[in-house]
Amino acid sequence: MNGSATDGLRIALFQGPATAGDVPAFLSVLDRRAAEAAGRGAVLLMLPEMALTGYNIGAPAVRRAAVAQDHATIEAIRAIARRHRIALLLGYPERATVERVHNAAILIGRDGAILANYRKQHLFGSVDRDAFAAGDADSIIRLGPFTAGILICYDIEFPEAVRALALKGVDLLLVPTALMRPYEIVPRLMVPTRAYENGIFVAYCNRAGVEDDFAYTGESCVVAPDGSILARAGSGEEMILADLDPAAIAEARALAPYLDERRPEIYGPLSGVIER
Amino acid sequence: MNGSATDGLRIALFQGPATAGDVPAFLSVLDRRAAEAAGRGAVLLMLPEMALTGYNIGAPAVRRAAVAQDHATIEAIRAIARRHRIALLLGYPERATVERVHNAAILIGRDGAILANYRKQHLFGSVDRDAFAAGDADSIIRLGPFTAGILICYDIEFPEAVRALALKGVDLLLVPTALMRPYEIVPRLMVPTRAYENGIFVAYCNRAGVEDDFAYTGESCVVAPDGSILARAGSGEEMILADLDPAAIAEARALAPYLDERRPEIYGPLSGVIER
Repeated sequence: MNGSATDGLRIALFQGPATAGDVPAFLSVLDRRAAEAAGRGAVLLMLPEMALTGYNIGAPAVRRAAVAQDHATIEAIRAIARRHRIALLLGYPERATVERVHNAAILIGRDGAILANYRKQHLFGSVDRDAFAAGDADSIIRLGPFTAGILICYDIEFPEAVRALALKGVDLLLVPTALMRPYEIVPRLMVPTRAYENGIFVAYCNRAGVEDDFAYTGESCVVAPDGSILARAGSGEEMILADLDPAAIAEARALAPYLDERRPEIYGPLSGVIER
Repeated sequence: MNGSATDGLRIALFQGPATAGDVPAFLSVLDRRAAEAAGRGAVLLMLPEMALTGYNIGAPAVRRAAVAQDHATIEAIRAIARRHRIALLLGYPERATVERVHNAAILIGRDGAILANYRKQHLFGSVDRDAFAAGDADSIIRLGPFTAGILICYDIEFPEAVRALALKGVDLLLVPTALMRPYEIVPRLMVPTRAYENGIFVAYCNRAGVEDDFAYTGESCVVAPDGSILARAGSGEEMILADLDPAAIAEARALAPYLDERRPEIYGPLSGVIER
């Protein structure tokens, strides 16, 4: 994957679709939005958590909708990436085995290759626990000038999860999410804090609209390593774009060298399982 | 230390004095502010990092001004606490040995007893490194209905430091600080995030005014466990008060149970010293 005109990387986040559940309709939207994002110079288009099928649709529906990585639906998504020469990252229910389903996000390269498949590691409430098994592996991939990592929604709310990736070299964190009220503090305060405290870019792509009793907040954002907001969506269906300049990472870290000035020897309780 | 009329705890933060360096003048201000805070029902008055002497005054001046815990100046502060029946927490340069000086904060009970003496563990830039040795111990004390911990300024910017205290049971974090431009993101976004991501109260008491090339941001705050701002100072010398209700801790953690839903087994790089 190459960058755009500059040495940086232009990415697009599609905060939508606001309604979900119809896979052929979703693929049609995806095709149109991939064309739009590529036309605007983006090398990557992100979509939210569980974009393929909807999220708060009940565990039985999630499990019925789950697809393996070699399913025809994933093939169709790979064809869209190839057609528009743009990388795609989106959430979906992954059937890992007959019994085991994951809340996953798949990253497909502009050539249609599967670059990564991340499985959510921190399950949120019954919406996740009733349907999914937790993942237990990082997804770290080279993306143009960046070392990219993937987390999903609730994962980023744990500072340890983001720090662990930053310490492994991740400097661009991609987060499909499905964040609802009353958790507005997450996109407004916490996501910029995660970027700043690790000196990394964070792209946080949320759902929009209402799904049963979940009212998604929108407010998708792309945050620079100094915590400043490069792009911010409103509450409805919307596409936002941002140009990521890798030079911003060293600049932010010179002013706030947290990764170098950690004192792991005094963070004892953070290693291993704590008796509480 | 008892709470105020409710089961909660009223605390006061004095964002000042805006000028510093004259210890007798400081003690006079402290006496007056302690009387005011006690009169308004506070059981604790916090002051900023290095409140006793000033902070950005050069390493030689800091080291000349450093006092041991049994110094007459500390005795005078203990007498102020006794006189007004109010606990005091303030930053000062502590002479631990002839050679070793710490950026410390001392907590004195309403009876004048020294309850805790915390030594800053993360040193910030040359202003700290030229003058101070780093501390290596927590300070955790019972304070009315709360388990209180102390950090100083840069310490709170490391999520690990706050998480480690929360895992040890701290639910009220007291942070004397001396935060300058361009780090406004810390009181605005990061401090509320620390409160929310751990489900704890945070009281963050900053300096005001200009000290050589440091322009302090003020913006001291008291944050509830759900990340909401209970009190927020402007940029100048100011006292703010807040009532801390311990019931808010369980309420916040029911909505955002981060401490219970951590997955330490996948945070491998956070244990021990990392090779980078």
